[in-house]
Amino acid sequence: MKKQGPYRVILTEKEIPDHYLNIQGFMKEKPDPYLNPGALKPVALEELFPVFAEELCRQEMNVTDTYIEIPEEVRDYYKMYRPSPLIRAYNLEKALGTPARIYYKYEGQNTSGSHKLNSAIAQVYYSKKQGVKQLSTETGAGQWGTALAMACAYYDMPLTVFMVKISAEQKPYRKAIMETYGAKVISSPSQTTQVGRAILADDPDCTGSLGTAISEAIELTAGKPDACYVLGSVLNQVLLHQSIIGQELKLQMEAYDEYPDLVVGCAGGGSSLGGLMSEYMKDKLTGKAKPYFIAVEPASCPSFTRGRYAYDFCDTGKVTPLAKMYTLGSGFMPSAIHAGGLRYHGMSPILSKLYHDGFIDEARGVNQTAVFEAAMQFAKHEAILPAPESSHAIRVAMDEALKCKKTGEAKTIVFALTGHGNFDMQAYMSYMDGSMTDYIPTDEELEAGFATLPKVPEL
Amino acid sequence: MKKQGPYRVILTEKEIPDHYLNIQGFMKEKPDPYLNPGALKPVALEELFPVFAEELCRQEMNVTDTYIEIPEEVRDYYKMYRPSPLIRAYNLEKALGTPARIYYKYEGQNTSGSHKLNSAIAQVYYSKKQGVKQLSTETGAGQWGTALAMACAYYDMPLTVFMVKISAEQKPYRKAIMETYGAKVISSPSQTTQVGRAILADDPDCTGSLGTAISEAIELTAGKPDACYVLGSVLNQVLLHQSIIGQELKLQMEAYDEYPDLVVGCAGGGSSLGGLMSEYMKDKLTGKAKPYFIAVEPASCPSFTRGRYAYDFCDTGKVTPLAKMYTLGSGFMPSAIHAGGLRYHGMSPILSKLYHDGFIDEARGVNQTAVFEAAMQFAKHEAILPAPESSHAIRVAMDEALKCKKTGEAKTIVFALTGHGNFDMQAYMSYMDGSMTDYIPTDEELEAGFATLPKVPEL
Repeated sequence: MKKQGPYRVILTEKEIPDHYLNIQGFMKEKPDPYLNPGALKPVALEELFPVFAEELCRQEMNVTDTYIEIPEEVRDYYKMYRPSPLIRAYNLEKALGTPARIYYKYEGQNTSGSHKLNSAIAQVYYSKKQGVKQLSTETGAGQWGTALAMACAYYDMPLTVFMVKISAEQKPYRKAIMETYGAKVISSPSQTTQVGRAILADDPDCTGSLGTAISEAIELTAGKPDACYVLGSVLNQVLLHQSIIGQELKLQMEAYDEYPDLVVGCAGGGSSLGGLMSEYMKDKLTGKAKPYFIAVEPASCPSFTRGRYAYDFCDTGKVTPLAKMYTLGSGFMPSAIHAGGLRYHGMSPILSKLYHDGFIDEARGVNQTAVFEAAMQFAKHEAILPAPESSHAIRVAMDEALKCKKTGEAKTIVFALTGHGNFDMQAYMSYMDGSMTDYIPTDEELEAGFATLPKVPEL
Repeated sequence: MKKQGPYRVILTEKEIPDHYLNIQGFMKEKPDPYLNPGALKPVALEELFPVFAEELCRQEMNVTDTYIEIPEEVRDYYKMYRPSPLIRAYNLEKALGTPARIYYKYEGQNTSGSHKLNSAIAQVYYSKKQGVKQLSTETGAGQWGTALAMACAYYDMPLTVFMVKISAEQKPYRKAIMETYGAKVISSPSQTTQVGRAILADDPDCTGSLGTAISEAIELTAGKPDACYVLGSVLNQVLLHQSIIGQELKLQMEAYDEYPDLVVGCAGGGSSLGGLMSEYMKDKLTGKAKPYFIAVEPASCPSFTRGRYAYDFCDTGKVTPLAKMYTLGSGFMPSAIHAGGLRYHGMSPILSKLYHDGFIDEARGVNQTAVFEAAMQFAKHEAILPAPESSHAIRVAMDEALKCKKTGEAKTIVFALTGHGNFDMQAYMSYMDGSMTDYIPTDEELEAGFATLPKVPEL
């Protein structure tokens, strides 16, 4: 058995990475290109300029560079809340009676409460540098919206956030904190956009989805001079920015003299898992090591485990380029029974390709009551109240540690604790009072989602 | 001008103090002793045993030892969330255009969201060690109750929390998070105790106060075998436990090559300020240095600035020993207009004595709208949403920094950022929508409070 290390390895601000790690640069087989939604041909760089800031478009399309320098101004902001700690779950290990060593990288120690801030500050920086005067985005559970509101407040950048209606209702304080940071928050679907009005005309009680909120946010700013849309997950640029998590993680694991057997992360759009795995996926892609990767998703929104690997729109309104990804179809609406985030119909094209090609070894769908059971146990022993999203990874890390208890294997398990649950008390309350239930979409519901997939001829 | 240091100085877990610093041990003039509420004679150690765990009673009465060892088990828990960072407010300094250097010690990076966990874990540890089987306490804004619930969950200790009714209504999620950690939460005044029933009979709409909640919590457990009461502030033992803040602070300030001109902290019961100042007050008491200390309190609950230095009950029900302190009278009920904590009628006997004797240089009352204005500005520039309580210190730190701007003095200012505001969105919302108002008690209201002071003959 390895010697005991500290509870937490924190690093100094000098050890914050100075380059983003571009996983695409290490992939021999690149993700399939985005397609223009009209012509169904690979999108040219310039075609993305009306939507995103130009530097971000370049990052999005960059499949060759392995590292991209982090601007000093962005790094200065990172210093305000990073490096994030890597914590060994001594107490949880003891409670489980497992020989496994469990570590978690905790990204919740900033006001937005999650890793999303890592990409928010970069996206606002590049937009500001280009002279952009207003931004729009969507948010589901609210972490991304909060992170972006913080970054926009810092740069005096006006921001409109379309928040998935069911989340806005479940989490009024998430809305309030975004407003505290100066953002304008609109529940989606809304009467503000054509897309929103059309959806409401069809279904006035629609509780919303990330896909719809994305459509509305894009409609608000796309094509307008000095206005840009930004997105908190899914995109290649977001995984790029989040790579700092994995770079710190590797340094911290080395301080423990450890290399993971198992890397576990929740996956909604894929930004956290993509960030967490950056260095270790590089090792796998370059043949240096073979850590086992598990992507965990809600059984209620099972894009990896029950979706199709196909070209699809990133939004419900079908205005975005098409991405090749694991998807449930842009028309899929996750059940309102599902609390918290991880509600996206698709999945990061990079992670999708890595999963398809076997570099991500496994995807697992879990039920939310089992997730909250793990969350409560984790909170008790590790003194951190985890976000529901992060608790998907906790569930699987605990399950794997319990397997080790049976087999006697002392595996090294790392998972991403992407955020805290301070704004998720409503969900915890419904778990505690027994009103929370699980939801698994029927095959018919999935088929209805797949029916919304676009028909794309072979390239 | 001093050279630029890092944004944050964090320290390693080895640098967590291994002894508590006992300010009383350094005071030549000790605080006046507690009095037995019946006989009005100084309380003997054993008289406290029916209320608190014995080791905690010893700490409470210990006016001679300068340092007391921290048990290894308690220190192990501290490692899960400490040392807390010291942060230089580079961005706030820049926004204010001040030559002052502003530092803040941030205690909000644990799930309870404040410094209160430092004492909670110690109190539960000593109680558990003595064989105590259940605990009771009160909570106002909810930080203490959450901290204690976390510590009790860790030690499998049943806990009942009496939560000030107005706070429970303003902050339903604070109640929920305590329940998540297994605590039973009762709004106070309640029908559960004789004290509560008597108050409700007199005033069914009573919104509660810390003094009342303390009475109820004591009534539930005092004198029962295997049951103890614990308190989150005011007491000498709590300041003792919180001294780890100030010990870390001094190490961190030395890493910046700094010694503070000005130390600013909010003061409700005094635990945070008492902890923050520990090392620097030691320097002042021993004649080594003369840092200037400012205690900041709400103008709506002005125990230091408009209270009397007199013997008073610590609770409304008049069951506790009498303490010599700055007090508004145990019958004083702070206006419901006041959001957040810092609602206690009295003040730490240690801080009271230090203020009376001139070692704490100044106390300042501030209005809550001015406090939230500072909080909003701080959040924007420093990326942390501060707790309303902490924002009292932010207000004064900013005011002092702006004075430096006028005079050109490059003062070194340190303040305590005692916690985050994630559970205070209702108060932020009322500030933003303009419905928050200020409240300053009239002289008549204060006189009514003073009329509840007990008559104590000269000792």
